[in-house]
Amino acid sequence: MKFLTVNHHGLEKYGVLVNNDTSFLPLKEAAEKKYGENRLPDTLIASIASSEELLNEAKHLSEWAETNSAAAELVLPLDAVEILAPIPRPSKNVFCVGKNYAKHAIEMGSAADIPEDIIVFTKSPTAVTGSDMEVLNHSKLTSQLDYEGELAVVIGKKGKGISEEDALDYVFGYTIVNDITARDLQSKHKQYFIGKSLDTSCPMGPWIVDSATIDNPNSLTIQTKVNGELRQDSNTQQFIFPVEKVIAILSQGMTLEPGDIIATGTPAGVGKGFKPPRFLKPGDEIEISVENIGTLTNRLEA
Amino acid sequence: MKFLTVNHHGLEKYGVLVNNDTSFLPLKEAAEKKYGENRLPDTLIASIASSEELLNEAKHLSEWAETNSAAAELVLPLDAVEILAPIPRPSKNVFCVGKNYAKHAIEMGSAADIPEDIIVFTKSPTAVTGSDMEVLNHSKLTSQLDYEGELAVVIGKKGKGISEEDALDYVFGYTIVNDITARDLQSKHKQYFIGKSLDTSCPMGPWIVDSATIDNPNSLTIQTKVNGELRQDSNTQQFIFPVEKVIAILSQGMTLEPGDIIATGTPAGVGKGFKPPRFLKPGDEIEISVENIGTLTNRLEA
Repeated sequence: MKFLTVNHHGLEKYGVLVNNDTSFLPLKEAAEKKYGENRLPDTLIASIASSEELLNEAKHLSEWAETNSAAAELVLPLDAVEILAPIPRPSKNVFCVGKNYAKHAIEMGSAADIPEDIIVFTKSPTAVTGSDMEVLNHSKLTSQLDYEGELAVVIGKKGKGISEEDALDYVFGYTIVNDITARDLQSKHKQYFIGKSLDTSCPMGPWIVDSATIDNPNSLTIQTKVNGELRQDSNTQQFIFPVEKVIAILSQGMTLEPGDIIATGTPAGVGKGFKPPRFLKPGDEIEISVENIGTLTNRLEA
Repeated sequence: MKFLTVNHHGLEKYGVLVNNDTSFLPLKEAAEKKYGENRLPDTLIASIASSEELLNEAKHLSEWAETNSAAAELVLPLDAVEILAPIPRPSKNVFCVGKNYAKHAIEMGSAADIPEDIIVFTKSPTAVTGSDMEVLNHSKLTSQLDYEGELAVVIGKKGKGISEEDALDYVFGYTIVNDITARDLQSKHKQYFIGKSLDTSCPMGPWIVDSATIDNPNSLTIQTKVNGELRQDSNTQQFIFPVEKVIAILSQGMTLEPGDIIATGTPAGVGKGFKPPRFLKPGDEIEISVENIGTLTNRLEA
């Protein structure tokens, strides 16, 4: 199933795609109508946290809505809503793995930059924005804005000391993140945080695909296009640290929580990797596609 | 005034110290009793965010409570409550400035490590703990746990592109953070995040002192003792980047929000700075004192 959060007439609602992905079913409202009681929390992150049964509940409600005329008024055509980030406001910074594809590590420096141990930095939750939302230029602060297409993992339950064997049991689903980076700020400030946390520099979405739908997160094609030109073309088989290992290492001494988002790193083909570099220009359109998930599309402020 | 959050019989309450800092007045409950209505939010972070008048409201309620016998039942002796971190659950990672004192930059390497541009990394909100709370050893993960005494700034209102001139208007108050660091993980994983975010590695408190009480945050003595031995002894006059500059640079392209916490960096005298290094040992007691704020005390798991 595809879980998403939308803006509908100024109200934030979360739900799933129904009717062959043409329509949006708001889950909280559907549960209220079906059961006659207020059964689900107000936000997707709270709903993920409140029950491991969210996927099953969403399946029941979707089947009910698709077959029951009483639900018709709840179902909205996709073009009647504005899609937001599936988790518009994470409850902590987004975790990001650095240099998780060898060819990307090399394009950023040399083979000496291929990490032996995982590199993790974060992006502020204030940077999160949705698919089709405009990304700010920050032209007074940076002249080297760059894209990074990434598979992102959404944690489904609390855990610490999670083994690689159990790691995927802790995943609610997968989405796409564009880890937009101001390269000049990234190198000027040494630690990546400042160059990675400008407002709107974390487009996410368009939705979360539940983990049962994805057989193996370490075997998905991932592509990024800029103005239609293919720039990144890889497969998560190329991960240095596969999803299970990322979760195991992160949770060694730090508790992971439902709704935590882990961007898993970007493959070769970022703007900085070209000679000369090809940074983003005003009005550029960036499309990131991950197999079995979808396409995250954003345009840079003109 | 000193704002704090406590655990009282399993309930989390926030409030201020009254009666010459001997007692705790829960603000939400006091407002309810005085005004006969539910006027304040449930948590200190929400209260800071909801009104710039929190300080004035707290002053009114304190005067009322100290002089009105009807309030007596609300006022709790400090030893009847368990002090938690003043903001037990920040709404994003804690911002941390790296190497903001020249002598500390030198003890971590050499004069070449004195930064020309500010270095910022983050600690996960899951790492936050309070004064007098036990800090976990994480002995399976690290043999180089280290202390870092720091002045921390608590943001009071939302802002972006804040000028140095206006910066202190955005400060709600000041507290103390022990930026506990696993040095081996910090260097192994290159970016600091993993070595800085182990559970309980961000003791904070014991309270937030409102900004009006602190004449100049860039002129405060700061000391750290380990088992009573003075290890760090400096003054925030030694900041490379004073508080105003930190706020201005951070907010250039990233929106700051009420309740955001910025740890301003640690002076010389950390365990790693000694030859040979003096990392923390099980049972060690760390006391960090900042002038006009108080003392944050934590003991390492024995």
